[in-house]
Amino acid sequence: MEALKTAIKEHGTVLPGNILKVNSFLNHQIDPNLMYKIGKEFAQLFQTAKITKIITVESSGIAPAMMTGLALNVPVVFARKSKSLTVRDDVYTAEVISYTKKTNNQIYIEKKFINSDDHILIIDDFLANGEAVKGLLQIIKNANANLTGVGIVIEKSFQPGAQYLRDQGIIVHSLARIKSLANNKVTFMND
Amino acid sequence: MEALKTAIKEHGTVLPGNILKVNSFLNHQIDPNLMYKIGKEFAQLFQTAKITKIITVESSGIAPAMMTGLALNVPVVFARKSKSLTVRDDVYTAEVISYTKKTNNQIYIEKKFINSDDHILIIDDFLANGEAVKGLLQIIKNANANLTGVGIVIEKSFQPGAQYLRDQGIIVHSLARIKSLANNKVTFMND
Repeated sequence: MEALKTAIKEHGTVLPGNILKVNSFLNHQIDPNLMYKIGKEFAQLFQTAKITKIITVESSGIAPAMMTGLALNVPVVFARKSKSLTVRDDVYTAEVISYTKKTNNQIYIEKKFINSDDHILIIDDFLANGEAVKGLLQIIKNANANLTGVGIVIEKSFQPGAQYLRDQGIIVHSLARIKSLANNKVTFMND
Repeated sequence: MEALKTAIKEHGTVLPGNILKVNSFLNHQIDPNLMYKIGKEFAQLFQTAKITKIITVESSGIAPAMMTGLALNVPVVFARKSKSLTVRDDVYTAEVISYTKKTNNQIYIEKKFINSDDHILIIDDFLANGEAVKGLLQIIKNANANLTGVGIVIEKSFQPGAQYLRDQGIIVHSLARIKSLANNKVTFMND
């Protein structure tokens, strides 16, 4: 997706530890017009699938997920994070490790918002090690719901998450695929 | 806003402690079409103001803020929450008490995303005691930026936040104003 790659090239900053900082348009300040285009792009990529629901994780996944939900005309559910979830039998939960923030979170979705009739599209802003997506897959499994695919705004293809998902036969569409952040430079997969 | 009031009446649940649960369309599961209408409504209410930026707080504020940003064609910045923010001189911070969650958070916005040329619209999902808005006001003040007004999806008019803001001459537009949640029943201000 060219508009996204242009934004990454113009406004992205590479920090030590293979971190790509794109918080001027994606995950702190948000460019709503770019996000709207991102939503329409995901909707087109998954248009032949009968998606009934989009799920993501707070906070950075909410903007792209909602714009995709608007384009596909389906509800969006964002999993909430909790450090210490009290035991509740009305939620599906999963463990998510964040390597960037060095934290361990539980994520949860209320059971009433996901069921075995659902065909689910997972949307997230970044895919690196894939921990957030794995957590959402666990919740989908627990709910006996059906996974349609995964839509990612920025895939760090040099980290294992995307390959892990594709190796399992999961359809992953990423709008920008980054081959390398070496030497403080963003290199895309098809450059 | 009738579509919102209808959604509250049909899907809202009143819980003990004056809590209105609207997580089937506003802040866990999101109805993107309703949110799009909410964004257009705020854009119309503030159309004569020269707004340059919208700010909100993660996570529940992101969806309405982004739809308003789309309608007004301006960037959205969401303040991030942190339990223990390490001292950083590149961010504006404020303290926010959450009465619902009984927690105390710091919120922060990177300095580069808000400055004295900005005319800012604050958007949030709920206004009760007004703590989140007060935190954002503090950040706007620290940045020497200009406040245009505050747009709230659901105002609990029986709690002090809205009155506190209006008493200071701040323009507050709320799309649904709740007079009471007594007897597990939602009563709107103009019912």
